[in-house]
Amino acid sequence: MKTNNIVVKKFGGTSVGSIERIENLANRLVKDIAAGQKPVVVVSAMSGETNRLIALGEQIDPDYRGPAYDMLIASGEQVSVSLLAIALQKRGVKAQPLLAYQLGIRTDSVHAKARIKEIDGSTLIRFVEAGVVPVVAGFQGIDDEDNITTLGRGGSDTTAVALSAAISKYSKVCEIFTDVPAVFTADPRLIPKAREIPKISYDEMMEMAALGSKVLHIRCVEIAAKYGIRIHLRSSFEDREGTWIVPEGEAMEQELVSAVTHDANTAVFKLFPVPPGAGFLSELFQVLAARGVVVDIITQSESNEGQRLAFSVTKEDVPLTRQVLKETVKTGAEVLLIENMAKISVVGVGMRNHPGVAARFFKILAQSDIPIHIVTTSEIKISAVIDQKHLAQAANSLHTEFNLDKVE
Amino acid sequence: MKTNNIVVKKFGGTSVGSIERIENLANRLVKDIAAGQKPVVVVSAMSGETNRLIALGEQIDPDYRGPAYDMLIASGEQVSVSLLAIALQKRGVKAQPLLAYQLGIRTDSVHAKARIKEIDGSTLIRFVEAGVVPVVAGFQGIDDEDNITTLGRGGSDTTAVALSAAISKYSKVCEIFTDVPAVFTADPRLIPKAREIPKISYDEMMEMAALGSKVLHIRCVEIAAKYGIRIHLRSSFEDREGTWIVPEGEAMEQELVSAVTHDANTAVFKLFPVPPGAGFLSELFQVLAARGVVVDIITQSESNEGQRLAFSVTKEDVPLTRQVLKETVKTGAEVLLIENMAKISVVGVGMRNHPGVAARFFKILAQSDIPIHIVTTSEIKISAVIDQKHLAQAANSLHTEFNLDKVE
Repeated sequence: MKTNNIVVKKFGGTSVGSIERIENLANRLVKDIAAGQKPVVVVSAMSGETNRLIALGEQIDPDYRGPAYDMLIASGEQVSVSLLAIALQKRGVKAQPLLAYQLGIRTDSVHAKARIKEIDGSTLIRFVEAGVVPVVAGFQGIDDEDNITTLGRGGSDTTAVALSAAISKYSKVCEIFTDVPAVFTADPRLIPKAREIPKISYDEMMEMAALGSKVLHIRCVEIAAKYGIRIHLRSSFEDREGTWIVPEGEAMEQELVSAVTHDANTAVFKLFPVPPGAGFLSELFQVLAARGVVVDIITQSESNEGQRLAFSVTKEDVPLTRQVLKETVKTGAEVLLIENMAKISVVGVGMRNHPGVAARFFKILAQSDIPIHIVTTSEIKISAVIDQKHLAQAANSLHTEFNLDKVE
Repeated sequence: MKTNNIVVKKFGGTSVGSIERIENLANRLVKDIAAGQKPVVVVSAMSGETNRLIALGEQIDPDYRGPAYDMLIASGEQVSVSLLAIALQKRGVKAQPLLAYQLGIRTDSVHAKARIKEIDGSTLIRFVEAGVVPVVAGFQGIDDEDNITTLGRGGSDTTAVALSAAISKYSKVCEIFTDVPAVFTADPRLIPKAREIPKISYDEMMEMAALGSKVLHIRCVEIAAKYGIRIHLRSSFEDREGTWIVPEGEAMEQELVSAVTHDANTAVFKLFPVPPGAGFLSELFQVLAARGVVVDIITQSESNEGQRLAFSVTKEDVPLTRQVLKETVKTGAEVLLIENMAKISVVGVGMRNHPGVAARFFKILAQSDIPIHIVTTSEIKISAVIDQKHLAQAANSLHTEFNLDKVE
């Protein structure tokens, strides 16, 4: 069979960061091929290159987003796939560099953060059947008008998983090689006892991405979940297993909580009393969205004195949010900004059937006298916004409480 | 009419060599548009960029040529069109960056020196009709398998003229902005009295390109001639007329000779006696061609002692040519290499009806005791290979003899 042993393998900017690293990567792929694998390779731009290109464009116009911006920054991947293909050819491997237009990687037209709509997997399979290694530019697509689009930060991971989905008849494994060796139960820089997670479900991984874990882009996990693609996240530097991101049913350790995540980059706005009238809240959040402010947690409560509103945004969005509040709040309501906040969360599919998790979460914070500013929960996570100064203690205590600590 | 005043305008690497220059170019285009022009812009890569990309590829494999090489070096133009489009947008001009695949610039598959086969002009016209300025990546095409191809050095000029040809129903003018302000009667560095030529015919321009003038690529003039595109070659730095390259009939100064050109980079091989048998010469030149050696002038003569062969190549091809001669000449024939040669030529459509030019050409060289190693003539040019040390004298004398000297 010419189409067995197909594996989509994605390598980040570090793996193609210099000519020497590209040559090393080519050597590694030659070994995989000798071992019978049929790789479909996806690469990012050489490390630093995308930032260099963005800086060029922003020297002219820092605010412009549109076809020319995406065409500009997509050129980074064009260079790295070409170089890797040349390195493979030199080693006697037939390799074909491929751009989005050649594979029909169709996206919507939201430049700089486009979403993949479809990929025609047949072109890819045709190359593999002909004994050719496809070397695909990550991060890019084309829209209905054939303009180049880009998928946003982490977009090459999404490309890799979407290619797997397009050829899922032949292969359901996507290997993503990164600078970190695995997904951890928490950020090891904050929590020294954090340990690697061998297997994690799509839902948990998506929650973690949404909660600030930068390991994988949420869209990439979404596609994997939809098409049942098993992602193997592993180290670019060491040849060992990392973390498998798989369907929930697959023999996972049934922990109540799988990970503690945090985002130290939070600010909270409080508003009291909320101006009367049904339209106020929808107008406020519409205007914020239109200005590009991502509002994270929103809570609202009634009291005899009136309605209370609190919501969190990232630190960077504070000035813009303040400006929007000034424009929309025309009553004398008090607007309070609390900076230097952090969001701490626990994630785990085990919570679905164990309502006790929330109680233990609050108990741990209470025991350490850590006040909670806002809370939000979903079926598989609990998040609280607390003061930054309490973050390390809260995170370590929760990590221990839910039995996540590394066994020494 | 939305399609009158369309002008294809091509700008070289110097014009987009920095963000500042790109901003200046955008300002210049804004002025043209305000004056009623509808530009179709073609640009090269930022100066130095193509060489940087070639160097990256050659670090891996200096000999590789194929789809990955062309994809690599075509990325330079992708960056410059994107940046120029951003700069135009900033000035309120609707601009659309366009790559070869978007315009259907179809070429053959000879990577690194592909030839354009066809362009669908309708896409371009659609943009112009919608009030959008197309900003087209020069130098690149796509082949029948949708791989990126590149057109060789000077390829962006060819792109510009080919686009003019594709929309020749609407416009027959192609402006090419370069570092030199015009075509000269000779290289001013060699001949101080050289002057600008206001108008020159396609045939003369093609001969000049073939004879070593680097102002315009021969393929670009060929296409202009075929479709009757008037090329206006002019300075990137000054706003004034340069040289028009036009059909022969158009009111030219009817000089006998239009220009003196030279190529100081020549070597001559002589072979005596040529090995017997009909097949030798064809085999020799076939093998040279297969190895990529461009043989320029070939002369052959009979004598009682046997056949004599002489041919010229560029200096760079000397080692390879010597190797090929060693492999193909199996008799004891003498192979003589004469290095440090130069080719000096006079070009002019006026020669067609005036056979006296050759006589004057030889007289001038004879008067100065300059020996001629090989000679070749066409309908509109005479070339001689002479010692490099005689080049300046020969060139200046010929320039004066044929009334080309600047009037002080």
